[in-house]
Amino acid sequence: MSETICALATAQGGAINVIRVSGEKAIETVSRIFIPKGGEPLEQRRSHTVIFGDLCTNGREVLDEVLVTVMRAPHSYTGEESVEISCHASSYITQQILLSLLDMGIRQAEPGEFTMRAFLNGKMDLSRAEAVADLVASTSRAAHRLAINQLKGGFSHELGNLRNKLLKLTSLMELELDFSEEDVTFADRAELMQLCEEVDEVMSRLAGSFSVGNAVKNGVPVAIVGETNTGKSTLLNALLREDRAIVSDICGTTRDTVEGLMTLSGVSFRFIDTAGVRETHDVVERMGIERTLEQLAKSSIALWLIDPTADMEQIEEIARKLLPICKGKKLAVLVNKCDVVDPITLSKAMEWGMKMVGKYGEGVEWEERDLWAISARQGINIDRLEEFLVRSSAMPAIAAGDVVVTNVRHYEALVRALENIKEVKTGLAVGLSGDLVSEHLRSAIRNLSEIVGEVTSDEILGNIFANFCIGK
Amino acid sequence: MSETICALATAQGGAINVIRVSGEKAIETVSRIFIPKGGEPLEQRRSHTVIFGDLCTNGREVLDEVLVTVMRAPHSYTGEESVEISCHASSYITQQILLSLLDMGIRQAEPGEFTMRAFLNGKMDLSRAEAVADLVASTSRAAHRLAINQLKGGFSHELGNLRNKLLKLTSLMELELDFSEEDVTFADRAELMQLCEEVDEVMSRLAGSFSVGNAVKNGVPVAIVGETNTGKSTLLNALLREDRAIVSDICGTTRDTVEGLMTLSGVSFRFIDTAGVRETHDVVERMGIERTLEQLAKSSIALWLIDPTADMEQIEEIARKLLPICKGKKLAVLVNKCDVVDPITLSKAMEWGMKMVGKYGEGVEWEERDLWAISARQGINIDRLEEFLVRSSAMPAIAAGDVVVTNVRHYEALVRALENIKEVKTGLAVGLSGDLVSEHLRSAIRNLSEIVGEVTSDEILGNIFANFCIGK
Repeated sequence: MSETICALATAQGGAINVIRVSGEKAIETVSRIFIPKGGEPLEQRRSHTVIFGDLCTNGREVLDEVLVTVMRAPHSYTGEESVEISCHASSYITQQILLSLLDMGIRQAEPGEFTMRAFLNGKMDLSRAEAVADLVASTSRAAHRLAINQLKGGFSHELGNLRNKLLKLTSLMELELDFSEEDVTFADRAELMQLCEEVDEVMSRLAGSFSVGNAVKNGVPVAIVGETNTGKSTLLNALLREDRAIVSDICGTTRDTVEGLMTLSGVSFRFIDTAGVRETHDVVERMGIERTLEQLAKSSIALWLIDPTADMEQIEEIARKLLPICKGKKLAVLVNKCDVVDPITLSKAMEWGMKMVGKYGEGVEWEERDLWAISARQGINIDRLEEFLVRSSAMPAIAAGDVVVTNVRHYEALVRALENIKEVKTGLAVGLSGDLVSEHLRSAIRNLSEIVGEVTSDEILGNIFANFCIGK
Repeated sequence: MSETICALATAQGGAINVIRVSGEKAIETVSRIFIPKGGEPLEQRRSHTVIFGDLCTNGREVLDEVLVTVMRAPHSYTGEESVEISCHASSYITQQILLSLLDMGIRQAEPGEFTMRAFLNGKMDLSRAEAVADLVASTSRAAHRLAINQLKGGFSHELGNLRNKLLKLTSLMELELDFSEEDVTFADRAELMQLCEEVDEVMSRLAGSFSVGNAVKNGVPVAIVGETNTGKSTLLNALLREDRAIVSDICGTTRDTVEGLMTLSGVSFRFIDTAGVRETHDVVERMGIERTLEQLAKSSIALWLIDPTADMEQIEEIARKLLPICKGKKLAVLVNKCDVVDPITLSKAMEWGMKMVGKYGEGVEWEERDLWAISARQGINIDRLEEFLVRSSAMPAIAAGDVVVTNVRHYEALVRALENIKEVKTGLAVGLSGDLVSEHLRSAIRNLSEIVGEVTSDEILGNIFANFCIGK
């Protein structure tokens, strides 16, 4: 923490680049290579001022004309002495500035190290620090809203309330421990139970919001499934409007699942292109099929693509495998290649598809209008598919200030805390001794504290900030 | 000019993005969507201060936590009221901020419009404004040094000196016009001639520096020539370490010249991959060959690639065409495919190559050590080629403060001014009447003024700034 760090905070390119320096020696080091155009040297400038001048890295030779911003501890992003150098976006200039900073004993920052320092210096709690990465990565309105809510402390505030309730529970438990068993009134127990219920309800709601939060942040998972060579990759390309997946006429081309992200009406969809399902003796391909079924199980929307030229038995074979896994999922049945197949064959395939859903699709969320003919190659009826996706995502609208869990680490900690609370409730119900119940309460508090980073380890921090970009 | 403009000044990506706003309404407009964290509103802040706060685009909903920098006219880059918004580098956030600025009547900036305004507001002359684009584009030490010299006004200063001399010449000429012919002393004429010589010398030096300046800025042009299918594209790829050119075994694959840039020991080289030279009846291919000879004529270094398995007559045929064009150029003769050809064939080809240079290479800058065997495919002896290139570029070292012309517009204006001065000299020598000589002097001054932008047109400005990036 005593080291001073630097990194390029912008992407290379554009008109300007910003180099960020933070740590005890940030201002004094940069002042050694910066000559202000008039006025006092850098070290005497007040916080939050911008100074124009020459940056001279090599002796007195001018490298660039730059703007330097001074932000003093504790009023900077990291809470440390900080400098931002805004230079012309030449790769040569940027490299030379970074090299000369390294020369003067400043270290290249690790990914997310600026934000980690902000957390360690108490500028923000851990869940807010994590929101910074989500904010930078947000590409849709909904994902942005969740990230900014979390950055603004909505989630931390909710957790704070929960924690207060748990502390109240603990003090009530201690009261129970201090006095002998007979002194404890029925009212106390009732209040304990009541508080437990409240905590349980809030935690369950938060944990339950994760499926939405995760879909918003990572996209609603959509699986495209069907026989081999029925045009799944072509459909993916048509949806993404780019050649992401490899398309060929050879059966079984797609073995790895290829993903693509798309935003429709503000909702992100994560498409999972899967291997075609058919009886096969090829080991690699069989592994692909198993993965397809796994992917299908994880998705919330399934698109079943039917090749109308395939024989009915084959389609039934596929339906028997796929449709049971679609239970509880939204399903669209798409009969492909409508541009090259005659109307009679096409309508037969559509009828057969409908029959299959009736036969094997118990519990699948499907209506008759969710079956139609398309041409993936010609882009025919793809707009109808987009409407289906938006309708099926049925993402609850997220209002400003809504607290939604989007982070798997937070979700897991919440689930653990929830288990602790269930134990407390059971303990209270069966009249477990107070110290045993207190044990579970303490675990619940510790689990919640992990989310905001009051209880944490270097390993946890390392994992969290490794996913940040350098310069943040 | 009265419009307020905005643009993203950084490349999308990284940790932060900077949006630049400039014009009369910059500060008041941004203050409508920015809530400072404490302190006075934006409009009351002093110049060159940075304020942390919430950016709220949509009603009062927070879009992001940002740093806003206020720079007041005339102390900003453009000389106008300016604001820089430093936000999290999310594409969604950046887009929303720009959209809400556009909503409030701010216009998206044209490429280079910020710098054009800096020029129009008298913050810098035109040659310095042009240096900004060169600086942003500079990737090598030498190109950077030329750009920063120009930005720092070295070139403008030299032009100023020239202009003063020309003005002195003009006043001397006017003196001559004011008095009758017989009053003009011989001393005056001698002084006029002396000044003309000085101006001529400086202008010639500046114009002469363009070949170096252009090579530094755009790279030393290197042509790779030889028979078809001798591995020219493979050699280019080996040098550039990437698959820039299409490589195939079919004769005549490369018809268009493919260029690639590489920096070696701080010198940029621009490689020109050319069509193979052979007798052909294919019209398209024949056009390619003509272009090859043109490209070769424009290059300063030629690499002649010989296929040792080709027959001697064919090699001689090529040599007869290519080598005369290499007159005055540095030449390396490279016998390719040393990894697959036996040593005897190889050494025969090398001897033959040497003989050819002796026979057809009159005036070519070539020594015996500039012939060796390589394997473009295996990368054998490519390091030796790199040494040759560095040695042959013989780029004069550019010291800090050296004035070198790098811009074709400046070069052309200098050449025109030089022609004017030659006319003045001739006029003086043959005793042309003072008013006719003055005419040429005025043209010379006008041509120099065009460089720094004292005399300019909207069309010239449009052309210059169209090559800038947006946000600069």
